Amino acid sequence: MYRSITAFAPATVANVSCGFDILGFAIDGMGDKVTVSFNEQKKLCVTGITGDGGKLPLEVEKNTCSVAIQALLDQMGTPIGIDIYLEKGLALGSGMGSSAASAAAALVATNTLLGNPFTKEELVPFAMEAERIACGSAHADNVAPSILGGFVLIRGYEPLDIVKLPVPKGIYCTLVHPHIELKTSDSRSVLRKQISLKESTVQSGNIAGFIAGLYTNDFGLISRSLKDVIAEPSRALLIPGFYELRDAIKSIGALGSGISGSGPTIFVLSPNGEIALEAGEKAKDVFHKIGLGADVYVSEVNNRGAFVLG
Amino acid sequence: MYRSITAFAPATVANVSCGFDILGFAIDGMGDKVTVSFNEQKKLCVTGITGDGGKLPLEVEKNTCSVAIQALLDQMGTPIGIDIYLEKGLALGSGMGSSAASAAAALVATNTLLGNPFTKEELVPFAMEAERIACGSAHADNVAPSILGGFVLIRGYEPLDIVKLPVPKGIYCTLVHPHIELKTSDSRSVLRKQISLKESTVQSGNIAGFIAGLYTNDFGLISRSLKDVIAEPSRALLIPGFYELRDAIKSIGALGSGISGSGPTIFVLSPNGEIALEAGEKAKDVFHKIGLGADVYVSEVNNRGAFVLG
Repeated sequence: MYRSITAFAPATVANVSCGFDILGFAIDGMGDKVTVSFNEQKKLCVTGITGDGGKLPLEVEKNTCSVAIQALLDQMGTPIGIDIYLEKGLALGSGMGSSAASAAAALVATNTLLGNPFTKEELVPFAMEAERIACGSAHADNVAPSILGGFVLIRGYEPLDIVKLPVPKGIYCTLVHPHIELKTSDSRSVLRKQISLKESTVQSGNIAGFIAGLYTNDFGLISRSLKDVIAEPSRALLIPGFYELRDAIKSIGALGSGISGSGPTIFVLSPNGEIALEAGEKAKDVFHKIGLGADVYVSEVNNRGAFVLG
Repeated sequence: MYRSITAFAPATVANVSCGFDILGFAIDGMGDKVTVSFNEQKKLCVTGITGDGGKLPLEVEKNTCSVAIQALLDQMGTPIGIDIYLEKGLALGSGMGSSAASAAAALVATNTLLGNPFTKEELVPFAMEAERIACGSAHADNVAPSILGGFVLIRGYEPLDIVKLPVPKGIYCTLVHPHIELKTSDSRSVLRKQISLKESTVQSGNIAGFIAGLYTNDFGLISRSLKDVIAEPSRALLIPGFYELRDAIKSIGALGSGISGSGPTIFVLSPNGEIALEAGEKAKDVFHKIGLGADVYVSEVNNRGAFVLG
């Protein structure tokens, strides 16, 4: 009864270019771990956090793990005490779905501890409550791919409608995290509230093409569709080197690039691992030339999502 | 050498709800016929038109058939004389792709007469030139499905990028043409030029879901996605009975409805032929109640496109 369960949940890319606000995907290898076990206090307790540099709150009402677990327990209606231990693998505020990964790992671990009363899909709304605490809005485009893996479409929110999409064979992602600070509030404030009908139509055509490309494994179509005319033109201005990187990776056969989440991390999609690695080298060159360091991470698109370890 | 070729091209629905300006599909059975044969004048000649009530021009520079064929011949670079005879099966200005069907039939007939120098996909830009003459803009969302059949996505125009999508097994269309006049210019003038970021995101989610639904034969997802928040709210006000019909067909299990082209024809998609027929009865009731007649046509989605007869 007092066993402990540890789950891992991956980093994610949201706001996938033409899929601004509706499309995310999961990354392999990088992520957060959460360990949960029953306690006798009949309440939640965040017993410790590592890897956050002391920045994350231990308070149950503020921590994304405990908020997500509380939403799950509220749904069950039975008071259960759980100790929560979080090992952050993801940097905070980098645009790689850090808060989402913590919530996703916490939920998958807790669901297992309780004998899996919920499907993975059913865990998503609980994780959205954690996003509401962490980001101010209960968006699903990081938590859904972190839990479910693969490319995930958030078709709509009223009611929540999540569609797991196929992952084309061979597709790779390169994440590039330039060493700049970019506040989410700045990234939000530059977004236009009104856009032209023409821009909306172009965006619709691109996301439609991108989805068709995923289903047909058509890298050419995916590449032609991977263009965001709505958020990127404003947000790219906040990320020096963005357009230089975009042009550099296109020249070596990568499919395209975009801003991950609200940045500053940039994602590059490639048709194979070699081009993805080369895109990483190009990224280092681009940022070196403008005097910035950059972390590069190359991975397949993770089709598994969060899972229990050991 | 002086044989004649007759081709048939189907009616089409463009502006398919959440696919405003980017998605069209073809209808079975209804359409236009064009017969072409070589002449000795070394120029194009529209020899006759039936079924148009005398409204369509015979002038080679103004007729959609001859304009489309001229674009094809210009591409080949050889001066060839062709006689063109058009049998209109589609009402003009009804929102069912009447001008597109004429151009599509003319091109498929001519291409066959010339020994098929072009693929069907390659004929689309020629038909777009006819749309430029007929409608003032070289849009492809009627001509592409009329030529190719099925659901067709116009991913973008720069360059033209056309994606033929799968047709879910069993899907049926009910076309409802209420007896009102609706000028395309009015239908255009009510469109907002600016829309909110939120509306654009909702539209993107819906078209993405619709495309995913086509690939997975998921009628539930197709139905949930079949919502246009951009053009329909303005244009539906020009079509009395639109919302009453929408609610009536949803109540009997149809997938959803929308305005065909720029109206006044309304299309209804259904998961089978029985519901499609019932939707037609509901439509007659709705328009009868408000004192309007309505023509109803029930058909499968045509996956063949334009073809040569006989």
